[in-house]
Amino acid sequence: MISLDEAQSLIYQQLGSLPVERIGILEAYERVLAEGISAPLDLPPFHRSPLDGYALKGEDTRDAAPDKPCRLKLVEKIPAGYAPRREIVPGTAARIFTGAPIPSGANTVVRQEDVREEGDQVLIFQPVEPYSNFSRSGEDVLLGEPVLHQGQLLTPACIGMLAALGIVEVPVFQRPQVGIISTGDELVAPPQPLLPGKIYNSNVYTFAGLVTRSGGLPRIYPTVVDRVALQQEALLQALRENHLVITTGGVSVGEFDVVKESIEAIGGTLLFWRIAMKPGTPAMAAQVGDKLVIGLSGNPAAATITYYLLVHPAIESLAGRKEMGLTRVQARSEDVFTKTSGQRRFLRAKAYHRDGQLWVKLTGKQNPGVLKSMIYSNALIDLPPRHSLARGEMVDVLLLPF
Amino acid sequence: MISLDEAQSLIYQQLGSLPVERIGILEAYERVLAEGISAPLDLPPFHRSPLDGYALKGEDTRDAAPDKPCRLKLVEKIPAGYAPRREIVPGTAARIFTGAPIPSGANTVVRQEDVREEGDQVLIFQPVEPYSNFSRSGEDVLLGEPVLHQGQLLTPACIGMLAALGIVEVPVFQRPQVGIISTGDELVAPPQPLLPGKIYNSNVYTFAGLVTRSGGLPRIYPTVVDRVALQQEALLQALRENHLVITTGGVSVGEFDVVKESIEAIGGTLLFWRIAMKPGTPAMAAQVGDKLVIGLSGNPAAATITYYLLVHPAIESLAGRKEMGLTRVQARSEDVFTKTSGQRRFLRAKAYHRDGQLWVKLTGKQNPGVLKSMIYSNALIDLPPRHSLARGEMVDVLLLPF
Repeated sequence: MISLDEAQSLIYQQLGSLPVERIGILEAYERVLAEGISAPLDLPPFHRSPLDGYALKGEDTRDAAPDKPCRLKLVEKIPAGYAPRREIVPGTAARIFTGAPIPSGANTVVRQEDVREEGDQVLIFQPVEPYSNFSRSGEDVLLGEPVLHQGQLLTPACIGMLAALGIVEVPVFQRPQVGIISTGDELVAPPQPLLPGKIYNSNVYTFAGLVTRSGGLPRIYPTVVDRVALQQEALLQALRENHLVITTGGVSVGEFDVVKESIEAIGGTLLFWRIAMKPGTPAMAAQVGDKLVIGLSGNPAAATITYYLLVHPAIESLAGRKEMGLTRVQARSEDVFTKTSGQRRFLRAKAYHRDGQLWVKLTGKQNPGVLKSMIYSNALIDLPPRHSLARGEMVDVLLLPF
Repeated sequence: MISLDEAQSLIYQQLGSLPVERIGILEAYERVLAEGISAPLDLPPFHRSPLDGYALKGEDTRDAAPDKPCRLKLVEKIPAGYAPRREIVPGTAARIFTGAPIPSGANTVVRQEDVREEGDQVLIFQPVEPYSNFSRSGEDVLLGEPVLHQGQLLTPACIGMLAALGIVEVPVFQRPQVGIISTGDELVAPPQPLLPGKIYNSNVYTFAGLVTRSGGLPRIYPTVVDRVALQQEALLQALRENHLVITTGGVSVGEFDVVKESIEAIGGTLLFWRIAMKPGTPAMAAQVGDKLVIGLSGNPAAATITYYLLVHPAIESLAGRKEMGLTRVQARSEDVFTKTSGQRRFLRAKAYHRDGQLWVKLTGKQNPGVLKSMIYSNALIDLPPRHSLARGEMVDVLLLPF
């Protein structure tokens, strides 16, 4: 048995990166940037009026007062989207609208609410500071500035930034294709009739959603019974067709747990088998050629928890993300949990904020086969070996993404 | 001008719910359940062995001791997936594997590590408590128990639960189709050449990602210049083709801000125009027939922030979700912000956990046109009117989803 940290680092060491493809920014939401992006232009691209008003030289208004307004001759009107044609010289001003370029010679914009227009003149009643209401070109982003880095997950704001910079195509890493194989004579695909001793296969459905969430493309294979010859065949096919393969079930110590044997039979090299953690102890990983197989318990909650701890960061890493894995935070426990274990234990829990403090409470039964407590869970309490949980105690918590 | 709370409730009042469709559970990830689901069977469906071992009557082992083991006759072997054929009577036991049904008559399972097999007998060296290592049928979910409620967002664990219950098709609400129209003579679609006075349209790209994240299907329309006749036409088309329409730009007070006029020209009834908040003051909403148009500022950061506050919960509500809007928490400010305003202000910020405490720091310039600070933001500080921000102060924070 190895520690979870060792298991994670053995997996990471096997993971390469995927080829790069260029895609349109409208398809790039939630993809991972394969190269850093520097700004090809200033943002804004010109000195810009942040409001509707009058562009002028601030110096012209130095002596303006309510009873002695400064009068400037209006030389043009500049709506957003149009280039000014006239330079502002002393004694002149231009009508200007939000987003329009400030004309050359002007160094400030006075709000329309603060002035009066009279014929071809504008009257200003108080001094206006030069460079107030003046959005400089490049004030948001400077030409050449690195804006997005390699490994950045493209959020809506990132996509908007790319568009603002005139970039419509970006290099992203291919999405990892992930094969999902469930094993076990007891599994029946819903909605077939449930004969005695059988249960419905649920893990592949859970995993399809999880793989999508992690940034991968799930591919589900038919369930394989506990026979080495059949498992070998299924593994070989899934390894050919995917960047990573996950199996569930058949990794325990019983005589029908043949996933390990099947992997070894196709020439796989075991990276580890059994992790000192609960639930999910019988997890394993193996290298087959240049591909990785991660074998998880068939118990639904154990499978989901070990997915989050082993597979989720592996897919994120394959997808090219720089920050991987679950966010670790500290929270105060609302609950008591007295069943200690010699192994590190992960408890299904719900984290929530109250009065600037993060709290965490258990979501129900913690048996490895119980699914219901997983539905309400958005976090895992990470309990060290031989620790129980006291009410009000600060504990380590991993936040689940979904 | 109305308050943000009033604006939000005026919008909610207009929102109906969308038709229901039945889809396969593999397509149901991140969809919203239109009807509650009760369990059509017990989970597990039978008393189940949680480990590899021997099923027996606990009473038979009452006098077992290391030097005086209890001997039971093995009557069958039950792998997972198979129905037991023999009843366990006093003096007998069955070899059993993880997940297999516990045979009738047995009330406990002893771990294989704790016993010894000798010929057709198993030797037990200490008393075994009845109903230890015994997963009762229905211990996870009971037949008839309500498991998922109407309005539930279907996470991977929910999909797995549906499969475990043998359910492969679920009623979900249709995804809201959301039309996105940008307006403004200054906008150019990337990557066209940027003539003087023009900027690249970025809002529709940001919004396409945001609408997807909120659970809607974005549909982008070509940019419309600031002319009522053209805007009318674009609005009418978008209203015909979508459940909700968002516009950006053209909602301020300048003479080229004609979105409000265009909406009124097609018979729209204004719900509000101008909200007492910064950025994003000139937001508006109108009802046109049974559809809603929400008009947002063209400034990228203002547009994104008002999207999160007005449009995101509207789409979630249309999508049938019960819990809508951003999560509000309290956090400690790492930064100072002294520029007070008479209006409620939302500051772009990054929230992070440290020592069980949620902290928040500003992500950069807060001008409504600045996009860069939005990229690094995962939260908005909600600053009341006339409030500045002091270092170490507890503030209200809205967490952004992406």
